[in-house]
Amino acid sequence: MKLATLKDGTRDGRLVVVSRDITRYTEVAHIAPTLQAALDDWASVSVRLDEVAATLAAGTAPAHRFHEREAHSPLPRAYQWADASAYVNHVELVRKARNAEMPDSFWTDPLMYQGGSDSFLAPRAPIVMPEDESLGIDMEGEVAVIVDDVAMGASEDDARNAIRLIMLVNDVSLRALVPGELAKGFGFFQSKPSSAFSPVAVTPDELGDAWDGGKVHLPLLVSYNGAAFGRANAGVDMTFDFPRLIAHAARTRPLSAGTIIGSGTVSNKEGDGPGRPVADGGAGYSCIAEIRMIETIRDGAPKTPFMRFGDTVRIEMKDDNGRSIFGAIEQTVEPYRE
Amino acid sequence: MKLATLKDGTRDGRLVVVSRDITRYTEVAHIAPTLQAALDDWASVSVRLDEVAATLAAGTAPAHRFHEREAHSPLPRAYQWADASAYVNHVELVRKARNAEMPDSFWTDPLMYQGGSDSFLAPRAPIVMPEDESLGIDMEGEVAVIVDDVAMGASEDDARNAIRLIMLVNDVSLRALVPGELAKGFGFFQSKPSSAFSPVAVTPDELGDAWDGGKVHLPLLVSYNGAAFGRANAGVDMTFDFPRLIAHAARTRPLSAGTIIGSGTVSNKEGDGPGRPVADGGAGYSCIAEIRMIETIRDGAPKTPFMRFGDTVRIEMKDDNGRSIFGAIEQTVEPYRE
Repeated sequence: MKLATLKDGTRDGRLVVVSRDITRYTEVAHIAPTLQAALDDWASVSVRLDEVAATLAAGTAPAHRFHEREAHSPLPRAYQWADASAYVNHVELVRKARNAEMPDSFWTDPLMYQGGSDSFLAPRAPIVMPEDESLGIDMEGEVAVIVDDVAMGASEDDARNAIRLIMLVNDVSLRALVPGELAKGFGFFQSKPSSAFSPVAVTPDELGDAWDGGKVHLPLLVSYNGAAFGRANAGVDMTFDFPRLIAHAARTRPLSAGTIIGSGTVSNKEGDGPGRPVADGGAGYSCIAEIRMIETIRDGAPKTPFMRFGDTVRIEMKDDNGRSIFGAIEQTVEPYRE
Repeated sequence: MKLATLKDGTRDGRLVVVSRDITRYTEVAHIAPTLQAALDDWASVSVRLDEVAATLAAGTAPAHRFHEREAHSPLPRAYQWADASAYVNHVELVRKARNAEMPDSFWTDPLMYQGGSDSFLAPRAPIVMPEDESLGIDMEGEVAVIVDDVAMGASEDDARNAIRLIMLVNDVSLRALVPGELAKGFGFFQSKPSSAFSPVAVTPDELGDAWDGGKVHLPLLVSYNGAAFGRANAGVDMTFDFPRLIAHAARTRPLSAGTIIGSGTVSNKEGDGPGRPVADGGAGYSCIAEIRMIETIRDGAPKTPFMRFGDTVRIEMKDDNGRSIFGAIEQTVEPYRE
């Protein structure tokens, strides 16, 4: 089943069921007005949504054309957005770029930060910046899951069984603000402006063999100003899978239905070293910070600038037949105007 | 106006208007079913709630007995909980207790972390711990505000005008997990289990002269196992007031209506040094970590243990006539049973 939230002028938008090829949708307001409402009562609501999805697939439901640009993030606001850094390769590279040491424990104890979840961007909304372009604006292409209620102290098996939906994320980051905030020890805050999620969220079964219960084994396609920038496989080099991340989040408190858990920037090594750019035949990168690190290693200094006004990032994932699974996040950086 | 959320088996509870003396309430489901619904449309809803509050005060509204134990946190779940450490005195003492240096910038640049907001505890709910008592269970008595929508880059004046409600918080902390999480740089996560808020949230006008637009000038009364533990004045030694904290949170992203901003542990100095215990005539402490620091300075080692199963903390605030303004948070530590 594939779900989307259409923008309708309300804070939470309107839940719809989307066809597998994401070209059509049908209304389900009589079942659940919003995705959060569906998640609040998933056991019973999902059965009814599944039935609608079947009629939509059969061509017997009233259908409308689905336009990705009309979609909000599946949850326009959420009660929790906890983002990990499960591709430890990425953390190691970003730290190297800052000349900061990475403790060995990062390979065994997941990194996770609490993100702001009250004001997500729509998947095609601009990334607006309040000041200028100097804050080191970067994209971070990621995979995320939405979970049902998870009890405090849940096992990884319980966590796996609580995964309800999967989607993509652009976890926008302001690199110039990161070192100062990390030094304060309280984690990211100003350095993590609003994130955007893919137009469509899908149940795990929609991924077929590409979902193994813990990871998505498909390349995350990141393009930057129209050129291929990254195609790292989300199932490779993910040190901690989603059940592990969810159990980490739930160690000392329960998680409420609708909690979003992010993978962190998808990143693949190449052999023992960092990956090469897509143009050179490598898997490329899911954020700019990583290519800047490679440039620093190779040339002594970073060359690729962070995002400037007018720069556009596009993030999506395709199935084996080349069809977009989640629709595309596509965002351009723009100056903020009050 | 005073508002509360009654537990009714639903995730968000039921909004009610409470009398000024917090002895009676009246139903307002016909105006707004939940506090979040009221905050989503505050400009028009608050006018109608005000009218109900007036009829309740006049004795012409259908009234029921208000029991604090029947209240959930005003927002049982919220879209954002951003907690500062505005009493820098507290930060300095806690850091000293860990033999960690505090940068001078902490006096000029607010510390703020993103807290989990999906599963708040009711004000009389136990603090359940999943493992044992060894995690350094501590209370943190704080003041918090709930804001309306705040634009990205809002000024402190705009922030001041967006403050809708004020309440108290117990920001439960697990001290044994803090150093490890701070060292990772991603901020608190497992070290901050679910917080609890006071039974009643009040509009700023309910505080009269005790609210100056930025701080609450009243003692925060913390008792521990029935004995007075703290009475630090929330209006004293608050290095950053709420408008400053809100503007800090909104620097690079907007804040959605219903965002909760916390003050951090209320803490007063005494002269140039740390305050004395209440039993010695001092203002005492709003968390155990602080008295342990004093003991370390005085005796070479901490004496007061962190909370154990059966220990109870009570947090409230009284007006000049000795009447409870927000009702009391009162929580006992209990082992978690699945």
